[in-house]
Formats: sequence, C-alpha cells, structure tokens
Amino acid sequence: MGDKKRIGILTSGGDCAGLNALLRAVVHRAAGYGWEVYGIAEGTLGLMESPPRAELLDPATFDGTIMRRGGTILGTTNTGNPFAFPQLDGDPIDRSEEVIANYRSLGLDALIGIGGDGSLAILNRLAKQGGINFVGVPKTIDNDIGVTEISVGYDTAVAVATEALDRLQPTAASHRRVMILEVMGRDAGHIALNAGIAGGADVILIPEIPYRMEHVVRKIRGLYDSGRNFALVVVAEAVPNESGNRIVQKYAGGQSRYGGVGHFLGDRLAETTHAEIRVTVLGHVQRGAAPNARDRLMASVFGVHAVDLIEKGQFGRVVAWRDRHVVDFDIDDAVAAPAVVDIDGPIVRTARGLGICLGDQ
Amino acid sequence: MGDKKRIGILTSGGDCAGLNALLRAVVHRAAGYGWEVYGIAEGTLGLMESPPRAELLDPATFDGTIMRRGGTILGTTNTGNPFAFPQLDGDPIDRSEEVIANYRSLGLDALIGIGGDGSLAILNRLAKQGGINFVGVPKTIDNDIGVTEISVGYDTAVAVATEALDRLQPTAASHRRVMILEVMGRDAGHIALNAGIAGGADVILIPEIPYRMEHVVRKIRGLYDSGRNFALVVVAEAVPNESGNRIVQKYAGGQSRYGGVGHFLGDRLAETTHAEIRVTVLGHVQRGAAPNARDRLMASVFGVHAVDLIEKGQFGRVVAWRDRHVVDFDIDDAVAAPAVVDIDGPIVRTARGLGICLGDQ
Amino acid sequence: MGDKKRIGILTSGGDCAGLNALLRAVVHRAAGYGWEVYGIAEGTLGLMESPPRAELLDPATFDGTIMRRGGTILGTTNTGNPFAFPQLDGDPIDRSEEVIANYRSLGLDALIGIGGDGSLAILNRLAKQGGINFVGVPKTIDNDIGVTEISVGYDTAVAVATEALDRLQPTAASHRRVMILEVMGRDAGHIALNAGIAGGADVILIPEIPYRMEHVVRKIRGLYDSGRNFALVVVAEAVPNESGNRIVQKYAGGQSRYGGVGHFLGDRLAETTHAEIRVTVLGHVQRGAAPNARDRLMASVFGVHAVDLIEKGQFGRVVAWRDRHVVDFDIDDAVAAPAVVDIDGPIVRTARGLGICLGDQ
Amino acid sequence: MGDKKRIGILTSGGDCAGLNALLRAVVHRAAGYGWEVYGIAEGTLGLMESPPRAELLDPATFDGTIMRRGGTILGTTNTGNPFAFPQLDGDPIDRSEEVIANYRSLGLDALIGIGGDGSLAILNRLAKQGGINFVGVPKTIDNDIGVTEISVGYDTAVAVATEALDRLQPTAASHRRVMILEVMGRDAGHIALNAGIAGGADVILIPEIPYRMEHVVRKIRGLYDSGRNFALVVVAEAVPNESGNRIVQKYAGGQSRYGGVGHFLGDRLAETTHAEIRVTVLGHVQRGAAPNARDRLMASVFGVHAVDLIEKGQFGRVVAWRDRHVVDFDIDDAVAAPAVVDIDGPIVRTARGLGICLGDQ
Repeated sequence: MGDKKRIGILTSGGDCAGLNALLRAVVHRAAGYGWEVYGIAEGTLGLMESPPRAELLDPATFDGTIMRRGGTILGTTNTGNPFAFPQLDGDPIDRSEEVIANYRSLGLDALIGIGGDGSLAILNRLAKQGGINFVGVPKTIDNDIGVTEISVGYDTAVAVATEALDRLQPTAASHRRVMILEVMGRDAGHIALNAGIAGGADVILIPEIPYRMEHVVRKIRGLYDSGRNFALVVVAEAVPNESGNRIVQKYAGGQSRYGGVGHFLGDRLAETTHAEIRVTVLGHVQRGAAPNARDRLMASVFGVHAVDLIEKGQFGRVVAWRDRHVVDFDIDDAVAAPAVVDIDGPIVRTARGLGICLGDQ
Repeated sequence: MGDKKRIGILTSGGDCAGLNALLRAVVHRAAGYGWEVYGIAEGTLGLMESPPRAELLDPATFDGTIMRRGGTILGTTNTGNPFAFPQLDGDPIDRSEEVIANYRSLGLDALIGIGGDGSLAILNRLAKQGGINFVGVPKTIDNDIGVTEISVGYDTAVAVATEALDRLQPTAASHRRVMILEVMGRDAGHIALNAGIAGGADVILIPEIPYRMEHVVRKIRGLYDSGRNFALVVVAEAVPNESGNRIVQKYAGGQSRYGGVGHFLGDRLAETTHAEIRVTVLGHVQRGAAPNARDRLMASVFGVHAVDLIEKGQFGRVVAWRDRHVVDFDIDDAVAAPAVVDIDGPIVRTARGLGICLGDQ
Repeated sequence: MGDKKRIGILTSGGDCAGLNALLRAVVHRAAGYGWEVYGIAEGTLGLMESPPRAELLDPATFDGTIMRRGGTILGTTNTGNPFAFPQLDGDPIDRSEEVIANYRSLGLDALIGIGGDGSLAILNRLAKQGGINFVGVPKTIDNDIGVTEISVGYDTAVAVATEALDRLQPTAASHRRVMILEVMGRDAGHIALNAGIAGGADVILIPEIPYRMEHVVRKIRGLYDSGRNFALVVVAEAVPNESGNRIVQKYAGGQSRYGGVGHFLGDRLAETTHAEIRVTVLGHVQRGAAPNARDRLMASVFGVHAVDLIEKGQFGRVVAWRDRHVVDFDIDDAVAAPAVVDIDGPIVRTARGLGICLGDQ
Repeated sequence: MGDKKRIGILTSGGDCAGLNALLRAVVHRAAGYGWEVYGIAEGTLGLMESPPRAELLDPATFDGTIMRRGGTILGTTNTGNPFAFPQLDGDPIDRSEEVIANYRSLGLDALIGIGGDGSLAILNRLAKQGGINFVGVPKTIDNDIGVTEISVGYDTAVAVATEALDRLQPTAASHRRVMILEVMGRDAGHIALNAGIAGGADVILIPEIPYRMEHVVRKIRGLYDSGRNFALVVVAEAVPNESGNRIVQKYAGGQSRYGGVGHFLGDRLAETTHAEIRVTVLGHVQRGAAPNARDRLMASVFGVHAVDLIEKGQFGRVVAWRDRHVVDFDIDDAVAAPAVVDIDGPIVRTARGLGICLGDQ
C-alpha cells in the first residue's frame, strides 16, 4: 500500500442531500494520500458507455459551495441496473461485463459506490463478478440500512418534513383544519415517524404498523371534542389501505403519479368526519434540499473512512456509524434486508408515550 | 377625537403569513391612544353568534413570539359570508343583521377587517348597511389587490415557492428530470411569475397568458438539446388546459382535491417528450409559513396606519403601500377588480428577457 | 443598434446577496440579443492589470445554482478606486487611464457596473473621462441610493438581521436579559430600523436620530416594571455616542475591529440598570447570506433593464425600481447624496406608533 | 405505582433549543399516566421563594407552537446555585433547605431537572440531601455530558454555526478574505469541530488541542498560494492563546465582554499575513434558535423516558441516548467529568483526513 492509486466514485439510486459533501471528503482524503479520484457519471450508466463517462475530480473545486449543495454533481439514476438493463423494445439485458471492462479501462484500483441497499447490492454483485475493489457508502432518505445508525440524506429529509409540519400547523389552527402530510418512505416509516414526533403530529401512519381508520377518526374527534382547533396527520407514501392493499394511483406516461395514500386518507376522513381537510404531498423537496449540518458531517466521516479502507486494502465493506464511532461491515450482511422501524423500539415508544395515534389503537 | 375607543378586529378569508404581526401593530398603536382592541373569532363568524365571540387583546401578549408566527390567532374562515350564509339543508340565508347587531352589542366604535378583495367587499357592504366605522387592511398571498404594491402574506408565499425551486433544482439536475411545481394563485399569477423568476424556472404558466403545449415542449427540448440536464416548470393552480377549460380535479367530500394542472401538465409532457417528469404541488405551506421580514414590516405599517385612520375619523378606507408611502383608498375603488399580472409590465418583460417560456411563444 | 455587442460587467464595493442573480440576468438578456458578456475580475482591479482579467461568461453556467448563491463569482473590492489607488509606500496614484485603456483593449462596447453610491460615482467619473458607455445597477445592503426603492442585497440583509432577533428573543426571555444586536449600516439606519420593526425590537438606534441614553434606560426599565422579562435593542454600527462622536474601536493591523457601538451601549446599560445584558455583533453574515426571493427578483429586473438600456444606446444611466416599475435615472443625480432614513417618513412613524424607543424620547 | 402523582420540572443553566419540546413530552407522558406536572420558574430560583413560583402545566397548551420554539417558557438561570447563592453584599449563602422545603410544600412526588453537567450535579446534591425523587435530563449546547451521544440543544447549535459558515464563505471568496468565526464552547470544542467540518472550515481551533500560530499561518498561506481566494477559520470561545493562557477580554459591569479569542486571532493573523481578515462572534443566536428536528426528537425521547423512570420508581438517574436506544445512568457517574472532544476519535480523524488544520501541525 501507499502507492499512487486511482479511485473511481459513483452515486447510485435516488439522489439525496449530502452526496456532494461526501464527494468532497473522498477527493480530499485521497489527495492526502496523493491519489486521484475519477467521478463516474450517472451511477453505473457512465461505465456502460464507450468511452466511459468519468472525469478527474479536482479537490480544489470542492472547497467553496459544492459541498453545501443538494443533489450530486456526478448525476445518478434509479434505472441503470446493469444486470437487467431496460431495453426500449424487448427484455432487459445483462450489461455487467461492460461495466467491469470500463472499470479496468479507466485503470481504477478501487471503486467507492454511494447508494441505498438496492444499489449497494447490485454494486456488490458487480464487484464480486469482476474482481472490483469495492467500498460502499450508505445513502438513503429512508434510513433503512440497518448496519448504520444514520445514512447520508436521511437527516435532511426529516428536517424538511418537520419544517412542513411547522408550516402546516398555523394554517390548520387558523381554519380548524385537519392537515394531512404525505412524506416519502417506500418500505420504511422512519421519516414519517421521526418527523411526525418532531413536528407535533397527532396521527402518524407508517407501513410497519397496520392501521384501522376508526382509530384515526376517534383520535381526531377526541382532539376536537377536547377543544383543539386543528389536527396534524403524517403518512408515509408506502402505507396501504386498511386491507393492506397498495393505494391505486393514477399514472401517466409511467411517470407522473398522484392520488396516493395522502389523498386516499383525506377522502376517507372527509366521509367520516365533519372536519375540513387538506392534503399536502411533500414530494421531491425532501431529496433536493441542501444538506443540513449532520448530513454533511456524516458524509465527511464516511468519505474519509471509505478512502482509509481502500488504503488498508479492505474491500467488500460498507461504512457505518454506530455509537459514536465510524465502523465498517461486510457488505453482504449490510444489504441483506431493509431496516424498517422497530415497532418495539424507543422511537415508537416515544410516539405512543406522547399520545400520538399510530393507527393500531 | 382622542376619546377612549373600543376597536374590533377580525381576519377573514384564507390565512396567510403576517396576520399576527398585524394584530400586534394594531393593539400597540391603539394602546398608544389609550384604546382597547377586541379580537373577533373566525372572521364574521364570531359576530354571528350570541354572545359574540370576541376577546380583549392585551398588547403585552404580542411582544414575544406571536408576531413571528404564521396563521392568525383569531382564526379565520373562507365560508362565512353573512349575506349568503351556508345552511346544511336549504339555501344560504342572510345573517348580516346579526353581525351588525353584535358589532353594536360589543360597544365597538370601529372595525378593522383584514382580508382579500372578496372579504373586504363583504365587510364594506356590511359596514354601509350597518353604519359600521370600517377600515380595511389588504392581505392575500395572491397580491391581487391593485391599490397596493404589496398585500400582507404575499412576500412569504413567494419566498416559500422560490425555496421549493431551490430544492427541486438539485434533484432535477441529478436525475436529468423536468420538475413541475404547482403553486397557489386562483385568479392571478403573481406567485408563479415572481417565484419562477427568482427560482430560476425555465417555463412559467400563469392564468393571464394562454399557453400552447407545443411552446412548452419546444422550450424543454431546446434546453436538453443544448446540454442542459434539467428543466424547471412553475404553474399557477388556476391555469386551465390549452382550450381554456378548467382542469377537472378529483374531489372527495367536497374538500380534498387532486390531479390539478400540475399533474395535467406532467401527463401531457410525458406524452410528448422522453424526459423523466416529477410533479410537486406545494400546497398550504405557502400560507402557513412564518412571516418573513417584509411581511412583518408591511403588516406593522398597515396596522399602525389603520388605527391612525380611525383616530382621524376616516372610514370606508383601505390602507395601501405605494412608492415608499403608506396611503389609503376608498374601499369601493380598491376591491373593484382583482389586479392580475400586467402582461406588458416589467415583471413579464423581465421573464421574457431572461428567455423564460411563458407558454405563448 | 442590433449589431453584435461585447459588454463588460463588474461588481464593485462590498459584496451582497443577489449579485450572481444579476450576472445571470445580464448574460441571459445579452444572449437574447446575440451579444457576449465579459466578466471583469474584482471590480476595476481587473481592468488595471495587463492583460486585464476578464472572462467570457457562458449563459448556460448560470442556470443551475450560481444564481441562488451569495457573493459574486467575479470578485469585488472596496479598495480599488483607480483615481486614488493605494500604494504600499507613498501616496495613492491615479490609474484611471489604465482602466480605460483596458476597456478598449477588450473591445468592449459598453460596461455595466454594479455598485453602491461610492462605486457608481467612481465608475461614472471613469466613464466620462474615457468615453465608456456605462450603465449602473444599484446594490447595497444599506439601501441608501435614493432614486430606487430597493437596491440589490438590502432585502436579504434585513431578513438576516430580523432572523437574528427571532433567535435572540427566546434566549433573552428565558434569562430575563436585554439583548443588543449591532447590525450593519454605515451612514443609513435602514437595516436597523426595518429589521427592528420586523423583529420586534423595543429600542432602535439609527444614525439619523440622535439618542439620549436616559431615554433608552427609561424604556427598558418601563418594560421590566410592567412585567416583561426581556428587551431587544437594535443599533446600527454607525451610531455614535451621545455626544455625537464616533465610538473608538480597537483596531489591529488596520482590519479587525471590535468594541463598537453594540458593546459601548452594553457597557452603558450595565452601568445604569440591573439588567443582565448580552451583545451580538451580527457582522458579515448580513452580506454573505444566500439572496432571498426579492433580491433575486430585483436583480433579474435590473439586469434585464440594464442590457435593454445598452440596446437603446442610453448610457450614463442607473436603473431603479419605483412604484412597480423599472425605470432609470441620470447617474449624476442618482449618486448625489446617500438616502438616509426619512425621519418623518412612514417607517419611522410606524416604529413610533408601535411604541418603539428611537432614543430621542 | 400507578397512583396519581405530581411531578415538578425545571430548566437550569444556560437555555438552548429543545427545552419546550422536552416540557411538552413530559406533560403529555405524565397526562397519559393521569399525573400532574408543575413547571417551576427559573430553575431552583422558583423554589427559593415563598410561596414558590410553580404552575400547573396544561398539556393542551403545548400542542401548537410552544414545542417549536427556542428558549424555555419556564425561564432559567445560570446564577442560582442554592448551595452558594450570591448576595449583593457579603459571601454567598446556602439556601438549599429552602428549595427542599418548597419541593415538599408543593406536594411533589418527583422532580425532573433539565440541565448541563453543572446544574445536574447541583440538583443531584440537593436530591440526596432532601430525599427528592430526582431524574435528570441532559441539555447543553456544548454536548459535554459523556454518558449520552447527544444532549438537547447541541444539534441546533451546530446547525446555526454551520449556517454561519455557509454565509461567510461567499463573502470571503468575493473579497479574498480570511473569515474567523468564534463559536460557543466553554470547555469542549464539539460545536467548533463538528460545525467546522460540516461548514467547510480550513482551520478549526478547539480547547482540547493546543495550537501554534505558525501552523495556522502556514495553512492559510498554503491555501492562497495554491489559488484559493478565501479561508474559513472556526475557533471555540474557550481557546486560549498559544501559551495556554485565557484571552483577556474587556469587561463592563461584569456582563458585556468582547475582544475574545476570535479577535485575538484576527489580530495575530493581521500581523503575520497580508490577508484581509474579518471576525464574526456568533453569540447567543446559537442558544436561542428554534430547535431543529433532531433536538425536538431527542427532547421527546428523553421527556417520555424521564417520566417512565418516575413511574418505575427509578431515581437518581439521568436519561441518555446510546446506539439507537434511550437508556439511563446513575447520575453520579454521568456528571463526573465533562466529555471533551476525543482527540483520537473519528471526528478529529475526519477533520485531519479532510486536510483541516487543527493548529497542532
């Protein structure tokens, strides 16, 4: 070790806050070792093309504003699985060997992949197949990677959702309304639960806890009966209807969807209460917001540690934060299963302790 | 003048940012004259009940955090027109005399009404009918009261919409997406136009300018062709389809609506481009956000001037801000017609000068 | 007119929020005419060197995040008066002819200068001497350019100062403290006055209104006697002591100054009251903050209009905003005298109407 | 257990963000048990007076905006140690028995004390002396209570300091300046270190790492030599001069201090470099800002757990957050020593990995 190395780095899956701070940490740490870092465009997509789309990243360019910005300057994609790459006509095809070949053609000694559990699993499979020296860094607004307390992007998403509740409360109270806020969270309810507590929600519905509409209605009626002039409801987008079925949304062109669980709940509440109801679907502002201090800090810790793992020749690892320490785990273990909300854990207990209705009672 | 007076104050119509700062200004100015201010609950609703719901406002309670908060501590309503008060069964009825009687029963010498053009027109009619000494203060996130450069609540709404664009841009660019942001604005496109310019929109659609989808598509294609990796579209909720017809939304219980122009545009763009599209409907965070500095300043200027008009015995006036001065106008003139965007004015000219597509070319 | 032109643009004097949005507006508007824009580095400094430091500005680079950022990507300086350019040893020298020569050597057809009254006056003199086709755009956090209601950078500075009061109030009330906030404002008290009203200050001291300490003390004592548990004082940095003399600050190396009027007032209050006092000197966060929506809007309006003036061959003008219109004035008139706070105007009247102590009674 | 209880609660020491959210959690959790909560005014001060200043807290009043606000609605104090209570003339006296007597006279079954290590140690001593059933909750912007990963108020303080760096960077770069930011942190450098990393500082000085000015100067010179046009320096207020001596500040009336380490460093840098230097002392906005989502979440978790400890009859405990769980520790252990920055820990390692100068090399 100690030789001059060339590292590739890519961001994969849905974008989130803190990715650029992570890039900065990697390029600065690598520069400290005298290494080069190549930024690969749009996840593995940049490695499927010939020539590959990758650029040498200059540490100096990261010192000003880039680290403070949302998104990823490299670009990213949700649709680039090289093992099942979508075709306009016909079945998906396997383009993994192209990716591996381009990793080699770029002369890379190691690859840092920043992604959620899906992306990291794909990159891990690629690495094993192609002998790529891979280190993974967890990023996801869903915070569903269990080996780490916190993934990059999550804290900012919670902050944006909490801020939305701070803004909905005054208008709710001014008009005696029930405000429903639909937040992101495909498999896990972490954003809804944590932002709901921080933002003073009265009802929080998450996919981990099946709900009954009658409990929600009873909670809201009870609040109004006791003199309250508003109610705040937070629901994760993945929450199904009471029968456990996914809410059927309207699709258009395969992309623009609406009429999700937030509006579904609004409709149901309108049928069963006299309350005036308004629904807000928070959407992509949860992803694109500028990273808050904690996301930038975690991104910095992870980026430095990822490079240090490469320096020590430890591959197939994913970095993590646990109990005030940066650690790393075997990537096979890390992406085994998404870490949903522990329904017996301290955060759910806190919600119940505050009298928040979680829909199951 | 100079006698001890008792003033009533109410907020009417949709809530917005700055109303509490306005209440503070009124109670403090009135206290300076040695007068009392009674806060009336929920617009004219509080004056329809027996006894009326009104409370003496203590200036000291406004000094801390209330003035910094969104919403209105008095409550407000969109549905309380006393000349056509809705009945659960049967036609609306005229309850204006009850309101006037309660104005008298409270021993009020004057009434300050804070509202948009609709509310101010109703209050003006009430005042004429009942001999109420009325002064109006303009508040509306739509900024469509033409006698004043600025109404309370508008600047904060523009700021929130601009902030949303700031957050959508990074995620758009990371994923090469077209982001559509639907903002409020029933009759006037001020929020969409001003936030669109400030937030770097590429396309802005407002009700004042009929659009053709082909122009929008051409603009977006042109951007991508020239190397851009994102596009930002802002649309006011009142924008109809290309034929000038209102977009049919899905209603539920008469309250919760969705599938508005934002999603309509998303669907149309998905049909005509290959771009990945996401739609955000900003919703009530535009109303409930904490008032920014300018809204609080304007609210303070207006509140003080409204009380000064009462002190001078000048009624049937609405306060306004024009060319660095606080002024007042006959309320009949002020609410004659909503002030939509001047399509030959400096803001539209600025948008065109920046190359922003307004849909008509 | 209509020929292809080459415009130079520079930012001069203290930086502020909105400058990059202004650059974007100019390059986009110029691109609409098919013109080129050269960005000149660090005000006139970039035109004093050989070769001049100036770069062609690419409109595409301004579409993403630059327009949302504080500061100026061109750089700026407070110390580059070419008529009296400072020398390390010896008297300042006149380098104006070098600047004019470089304007010519770059082949510029016109120059847009963004500055405060001082910078605009210097640039105006240069333009007359050298036959430069000059258009000025007003920027200053002090808002002391009288021909325009608003200069770029001012609204953000007021917002930051107001936010500081929003943060100081809770800690003041928790500890029964008097919080003194010193804000910027060399000759004019606009920031202090407007932020003080918006932020709920009890005392506002501005250079336009001489104060007596006894009035300040009486106000604060009165508040505490009436049950208040905090007081907020805002003071503009330029406010002198009671005798009208500038507060002597400690200097070091000619740059780092401290012990200004905020601390001076804190000391005086500590001598005359039992209140616990804390002083915050807000400093450069007022300049460097990201531009708010209004500053970006005004910057866009001004930038487009400045280019349009060039297109019409109208030089020696400064753009301005008045009564909902973008206008322009002869630059000689515009920079004749700084526009201080009108002590009989509506904002001062509002402050007095709210019971705020301005130090003179 | 299970009987109706009466709990007292107080906030002690310097205020911070999240205290009101904590009060809300306690009153809601207690209400769930059917218990009453009395809020004691201004820490132990409220228990020294006769009659004691304490009020029944109504859970309903906490549902709207209080939980979102900075400061503490109970009031707090830094100067009320009952074992050594300051006298205007003469030595401090022991008033601990008055406090204990009032705890009894209020009929309290238990006391929740929210404080930093100093306050918790005093309250612990009081509890032992008087047989008070005490539970402590850690709050401190300094985050120096070692048993918990996070104390209430810290995350917001870091966020405010990081935001200041975000604002100072653009103005620094526009003017080629070195910006020095002095943040709070009496004994521990956590705020400076974490905000410095998140905010892109080039130099971070903390009390745990003695610095040499020559290293700081070398770092800044190196940056400018390599083409950088700005530098950001963060320093904790407790950092001494190079000889390890406390910086002598100017005092006035024992309260208002200035000329601390920020300006000291500014002076030293001005002597040894040609760089233009500006100093910002962030001050009390770090304490008074509205609590961010994480501080409100932690406050909620802690508040619920504190009441649960009382329900289980477990006293002399302090609640804490460790590795995704809420736990509790013997209070004697918890306040033994302030937890300063681990100079071999992951955060310091991250800072060094990024190339940040910590002053020791």
